[in-house]
Amino acid sequence: MNVLVINCGSSSLKYQLINMQNEEVLGKGLVERIGIEGSKLTHEAAGKKIVIEDPMKDHKDALKHVLSALVDKDHGAVADMSEISAVGHRVVHGGEKFASSVVITPEVMDAIKECSDLAPLHNPANIMGIDACKEILPNVPHVAVFDTAFHQTMPKDSYLYGLPYELYEKHGIRKYGFHGTSHKYVSDRAAAILGKDIKDLKIITCHLGNGASIAAVEFGKSVDTSMGLTPLEGSIMGTRCGDIDPAIVKFIMDKENLNAAQVDSLLNKQSGILGMSCISSDFRDVENAANEGNELAQVALSAFAKRVKKYIGSYMAEMGGVDAIVFTAGLGENSISMREDICEGLDGLGIVIDKEKNNVRGKETVVSTDDSKVKILVIPTNEELVIARDTAELAK
Amino acid sequence: MNVLVINCGSSSLKYQLINMQNEEVLGKGLVERIGIEGSKLTHEAAGKKIVIEDPMKDHKDALKHVLSALVDKDHGAVADMSEISAVGHRVVHGGEKFASSVVITPEVMDAIKECSDLAPLHNPANIMGIDACKEILPNVPHVAVFDTAFHQTMPKDSYLYGLPYELYEKHGIRKYGFHGTSHKYVSDRAAAILGKDIKDLKIITCHLGNGASIAAVEFGKSVDTSMGLTPLEGSIMGTRCGDIDPAIVKFIMDKENLNAAQVDSLLNKQSGILGMSCISSDFRDVENAANEGNELAQVALSAFAKRVKKYIGSYMAEMGGVDAIVFTAGLGENSISMREDICEGLDGLGIVIDKEKNNVRGKETVVSTDDSKVKILVIPTNEELVIARDTAELAK
Repeated sequence: MNVLVINCGSSSLKYQLINMQNEEVLGKGLVERIGIEGSKLTHEAAGKKIVIEDPMKDHKDALKHVLSALVDKDHGAVADMSEISAVGHRVVHGGEKFASSVVITPEVMDAIKECSDLAPLHNPANIMGIDACKEILPNVPHVAVFDTAFHQTMPKDSYLYGLPYELYEKHGIRKYGFHGTSHKYVSDRAAAILGKDIKDLKIITCHLGNGASIAAVEFGKSVDTSMGLTPLEGSIMGTRCGDIDPAIVKFIMDKENLNAAQVDSLLNKQSGILGMSCISSDFRDVENAANEGNELAQVALSAFAKRVKKYIGSYMAEMGGVDAIVFTAGLGENSISMREDICEGLDGLGIVIDKEKNNVRGKETVVSTDDSKVKILVIPTNEELVIARDTAELAK
Repeated sequence: MNVLVINCGSSSLKYQLINMQNEEVLGKGLVERIGIEGSKLTHEAAGKKIVIEDPMKDHKDALKHVLSALVDKDHGAVADMSEISAVGHRVVHGGEKFASSVVITPEVMDAIKECSDLAPLHNPANIMGIDACKEILPNVPHVAVFDTAFHQTMPKDSYLYGLPYELYEKHGIRKYGFHGTSHKYVSDRAAAILGKDIKDLKIITCHLGNGASIAAVEFGKSVDTSMGLTPLEGSIMGTRCGDIDPAIVKFIMDKENLNAAQVDSLLNKQSGILGMSCISSDFRDVENAANEGNELAQVALSAFAKRVKKYIGSYMAEMGGVDAIVFTAGLGENSISMREDICEGLDGLGIVIDKEKNNVRGKETVVSTDDSKVKILVIPTNEELVIARDTAELAK
């Protein structure tokens, strides 16, 4: 059984076609600039990588190009569309309605639409993707896999903010958390690598990419996470501010004469490592500048490391200890120095990184010293595989 | 030498007259409803407590009543005003200009006024109080003691937010922290009680009152604290929300059709334990309701305890360990159950509360078990005494 995994942004579409017998990726790619001049499909399969530049006016148009690439005689992944048995869709926000993946029915579509309020930038794009796919592949099951679902196990005293309870009841204002698929995948992998049952482990998973979130996974369940109602809260990120005094929003509006939407955009797109360093949202650029002695770059990275370190400490307190810490996603998998900075000085808490073992990028590795009480692991995340597995399971 | 300590709110004035030879409080009291119908002075001295109801149109008027009570033949504290040698003023926000207390000069007044932007509710009231006092007591030194000063030792990667650096340079948007006088007092006391040099200790101080903040005091210096640009950030408080996703500000504006000032007011005055419990901002009321089985009251208290617990963990990580945890202020000194809830489950981190010893209110006590690696202390705070000491020192 082959599962097509689809992840739609407002003007982009990422895909993977996975053979579920051996979990091999048969083909994958990315469409950029959908509905914008310069639409482009980058496709990899059969050992080839091709780029197709062609106007694609909407997600349906983009998907037609993707499917035609997937069944192409020269650079395709399968002989024809009948070899695609199910489609798994990444959906960002499932609100409180979805604690696990589901087969998409008209009722499910309505519920996803109702969650658009909570993720106005993401859910509408996901919905466009689902609509386009269902039109072109009407005879296979479609499954929705939610970024929020894994965190639905958080207890009420973790997910409620210190706000009037009425705002939770009326508008669903609470902590939801994101990157759930990734936190679930790497915590499961950590247990497997350590040869332990996840039901016996307290794990802190650090998904550190351009978006960054940290989760406390106790006995296999998420009990807390750093992102909140939206993906703006928590760690400092590439362009997002993460935790700030909530009074700052009005303060900036007043001082800079901006409206709320403009401040929201500033906090989401002009802040984080980009805003602090005045250099770039790409950690590699900022690390290079820091190495060359740029003070703002050094402070930005150091503030980032400290923020993650503090989340690790807070989740240790919340769970009453930790057995393993996992680093994943772009920065977590690849930045040797950032992992070292985050773990620096935590020896007293039983967390000791091995500088030799930590000299690794993008490979499943235990990077703590042999006598470190807490195991530290690097685990490349694979959200597409989790989506494909859930889809295959539900499509049975 | 007797020092008069003054703490002005917009319509209130608290005072203590302290004999610095023995640090005895000679007289103290509170004026309420200054400039509002029903002005009232409650005064205690010479073993008597009196209430004077009389119109007081401004802070100068209020202060005249206070001084006349302090030198009264029947219920006064001193024979005449010449026995007041100096005045210490609590000032909320000293921005980056003041890292310690200072004798008030015209230049200092200008600098305090410049900080009003950062504390528009507090500094103007403090300034009114200073102006009134200097007019009535022109011939004694006046000293300003800042709530923010103790936290000026925070390193840059603790006090900078993940925001465009320009906002820090242009508008001073950074973490300042508050309750500094209290955090300094109780951390000094903790070292004395433990018979150690504060320069050898890592201490986490939990100032838990209607306003609540937690500080990491490493070797006698504040290296981090939970309040931020304003006293809205951090722990859940009586009526303040503490940490929330910053995107929630715009979300509430949109959903409830409020402007930024209205949301700011909601987050400061209608949120926290009051908003979550729908009962009261007074922890005693909420504890009673929780004991009677009220679910929202239980969740509010449990969320509060969890938030403080997480701050303790985060500061342990930041300092690489902790030697002592101090509870102070109304709730910290008096709520046996809250201290127990906060410390519950931290045994694995070396923090073990002794339920017997913890059965104490408002008294300096070590409440950890004898074999707890981390000492836990209850220490009643005394901000007035710190203000008086700094004032006496500078007035020499």
